[in-house]
Amino acid sequence: MSTVAAINHQVRLAARPSGLPTDANWQFSEEPVTDPGAGGVLVQVLALSLDPAMRGWMNEGKSYIRPVEIGEVMRAGGVGRVVASRTSAFAAGDLVAGTLGVQEYWSVPAEQLPKSGLHKIDPRLGQPTQWLNVLGMPGMTAYFGLFDVGQPKAGETVVVSGAAGAVGQTVGQLARIKGCRAVGIAGGQAKCEWVVKELGFDACIDYKATAPAGVERWDAVREGLKQHCPGGVDVYFDNVGVPILDAVLARINRKARIVICGAIAQYNATGGMQGPRNYMSLLVNRARMEGMVVFDYADRYPQAIAELAGYLKDGRMKSKEDVVRGGVKAFPSTLLKLFSGENFGKLVLHVAD
Amino acid sequence: MSTVAAINHQVRLAARPSGLPTDANWQFSEEPVTDPGAGGVLVQVLALSLDPAMRGWMNEGKSYIRPVEIGEVMRAGGVGRVVASRTSAFAAGDLVAGTLGVQEYWSVPAEQLPKSGLHKIDPRLGQPTQWLNVLGMPGMTAYFGLFDVGQPKAGETVVVSGAAGAVGQTVGQLARIKGCRAVGIAGGQAKCEWVVKELGFDACIDYKATAPAGVERWDAVREGLKQHCPGGVDVYFDNVGVPILDAVLARINRKARIVICGAIAQYNATGGMQGPRNYMSLLVNRARMEGMVVFDYADRYPQAIAELAGYLKDGRMKSKEDVVRGGVKAFPSTLLKLFSGENFGKLVLHVAD
Repeated sequence: MSTVAAINHQVRLAARPSGLPTDANWQFSEEPVTDPGAGGVLVQVLALSLDPAMRGWMNEGKSYIRPVEIGEVMRAGGVGRVVASRTSAFAAGDLVAGTLGVQEYWSVPAEQLPKSGLHKIDPRLGQPTQWLNVLGMPGMTAYFGLFDVGQPKAGETVVVSGAAGAVGQTVGQLARIKGCRAVGIAGGQAKCEWVVKELGFDACIDYKATAPAGVERWDAVREGLKQHCPGGVDVYFDNVGVPILDAVLARINRKARIVICGAIAQYNATGGMQGPRNYMSLLVNRARMEGMVVFDYADRYPQAIAELAGYLKDGRMKSKEDVVRGGVKAFPSTLLKLFSGENFGKLVLHVAD
Repeated sequence: MSTVAAINHQVRLAARPSGLPTDANWQFSEEPVTDPGAGGVLVQVLALSLDPAMRGWMNEGKSYIRPVEIGEVMRAGGVGRVVASRTSAFAAGDLVAGTLGVQEYWSVPAEQLPKSGLHKIDPRLGQPTQWLNVLGMPGMTAYFGLFDVGQPKAGETVVVSGAAGAVGQTVGQLARIKGCRAVGIAGGQAKCEWVVKELGFDACIDYKATAPAGVERWDAVREGLKQHCPGGVDVYFDNVGVPILDAVLARINRKARIVICGAIAQYNATGGMQGPRNYMSLLVNRARMEGMVVFDYADRYPQAIAELAGYLKDGRMKSKEDVVRGGVKAFPSTLLKLFSGENFGKLVLHVAD
C-alpha cells in the first residue's frame, strides 16, 4: 500500500435537514487514507452520482433503506478505480462501481467486501459517467420500473415526468424503442426541446412555461396532456409527485398503470406531504398505482445492462450527464441543483480524473 | 294488463347537490302505471338498494357510469316481482332484480329489455333482501374486489373499512373463509362487536371511539391497526377513503395490495377531495393501489353467486340488512343514513311486501 499516502476528504451528515439541506447539515472531514487490510480493497473515487433519493436518506425513520446516521459519510453511488487490492477479486486499475460515499477514497475491509456491492464495470460498454446513468441505478430504475411495473404495450402512450433527468430520459427512450408514444414533462424550454429533438420523445410539456392569462400552471399541464396524449395516458412513470401526478390522473385510460418512482417536488416540503387528490380516478378507470425500488431487481441488472449497452452502441439511446467539477467539497451546493431543477441530465459530481 | 290500475310514485333528481343531498335535490312525481307494450314487462318494486355510489351518480361529469339527469327517476338497484309480462322471458310472479329506479313500478318496453339488466332471481338461494346484499352488487363487489384485485393468500392479514356495511361484511367473511386474518374498521361499539362476535372477524377497530387524552382519533386508528395487525397489513379493502386510508398506508407490508372500492368519507366534501398523504408508502413497500368497478365482472356473477349462496346455506356466511320501511317517499331521508354511518348492515328501502 506504499503507493498511497494521501488524505481522504469526506462529507458527513452533521444534522438532519428540515426542508432544503443547508451548510449546517454537512460536516467536512479529512483523514489519512487507510489500508483495507488483508482481503480488502482500496478504491479512489472518480465520480459520484447525485440523486433525489439522497434527500430521503437524510431523514430519520423507516424507509426502504436505513437512514444515513449523523456523523456518517454521506451515502452516494459512484464509480472509482482500484488503487490497491489485497484480494484476487480485484486488481489495481480495475474500474468499479458501488456505494462509494461522498469521499475521495473508499477503503473496504475484507469482511465488508461481500455485501459492499462493489463490482467491476466494463469500460467497453460505456464511459464511467454512463455507468452512473443509463448503465447505473437510474437506468436500472427506468428499465425495471417501466417494463416490470408499467408493462407498456406497443401503441400505448407513456408519460414520464422529470423527462430530462436521469431516470426520465431512459424511460422515454425505452418507451419509444418498444413502440410506444412517449410524452415527457420537464421544466424549461431547453430541456423540452432536447427531450424531443435529441432523445426522440413524441412531445414534451414544459411545466415551467408561462400559462396563458387566467390559466393556472397545473391546468396548463393538464391541457398539454390533453393535446399531446389525444388517446389518453396508459402508463405514467412518476418521478415528481403532486401536483403533476394529479394532472396526469385526470387523463389516464382504463387499466392505466402508474409507476411511483419518486416525488422530488415534495422531498423538501416542511408542511408534510400532499396526497394525490385525484386518486379516485384509479377507481373510475380501474387503474393501478404501484411503487418500485430498484434494488429488488439486482439479480437481473446484468441482463438490463447488456440490453441498454446495446442501445447505446447502436445509437438508439442517448445518455446525457450533467457533470459538475469541484470535488467532494462541491457536494452540498451541487445536490441543491436537483431540487431547483437546474441539472440538465443525470447529475454527476466529478471527483478525480 | 287489466289487473294493474295503480299510480306509480317516483323520486326524481331535481338539482345536483353540493355536499350532502337535501330535500331541494329531489322531486316527487306520480304517474299512472304504464303498459310496457308487446314484448315488454311490468315490475312492481319490492325493495331498493341504497348505496354510497348513488352520491356520485348525482354529480355531473364523466365517471364509470353516466350521471343521473335532472328530472330523471333516481337510479337504484332493486328487487321486484313481475306483475305483467308480454314476453316469454318472464312470467307474472317471477322475482327479478335489476336497476329498477326509485319508484313503485318499472315498466320496461321490449326494446329496452335486452340491455336493461333485468334478470330472474332464485328465492331458494336467498331472501329478496339478500339479493340486494351478499347475492347482489355489494356481494359481487366484495367477491371480485377481494379475490381478483386484492388477491389474498391464506395466512395474510386483510383489513376492510366500512366493515359492518354491505360490502365490508362480505369482504371480511370471505377473507376468513380463505384462511386470512380479518380486521375490520367500523364506527361504533355495537357494529364492532357484531363484526367480531357474529361475523367472526378477528378484530374490529372502532374509529368513532373516544381516543385517549392527547391522542388524535386517527392516531388511535393507527394504534388499533398496530395492535390488531401485528404482522402488518397485506390487503386493504378501502370503502371510506382518507383519512383512514392514510392510517392503513402507514402499516402496510411489502407487496401489499390496496383495493380502492369507495371513499364514502369524502363523497359529500365541498372543499374538494383529499389525497392520501402517505401514498409514498406504496414506494417504500413496493405496494399497489388499484381501483375496481364491479360491472367489469358481470360475466362471472353467476359463479360468485353460486359460491356465496353456498356459504349462506352452510352457515359460514351471515348477511345483515338494515331494512327501512316507508316506501319511496322515505328515500331522501334514508339515503342520508349512509353518510352519517347510522345504517347497520346493508341499507335497504322496503317499498312493497
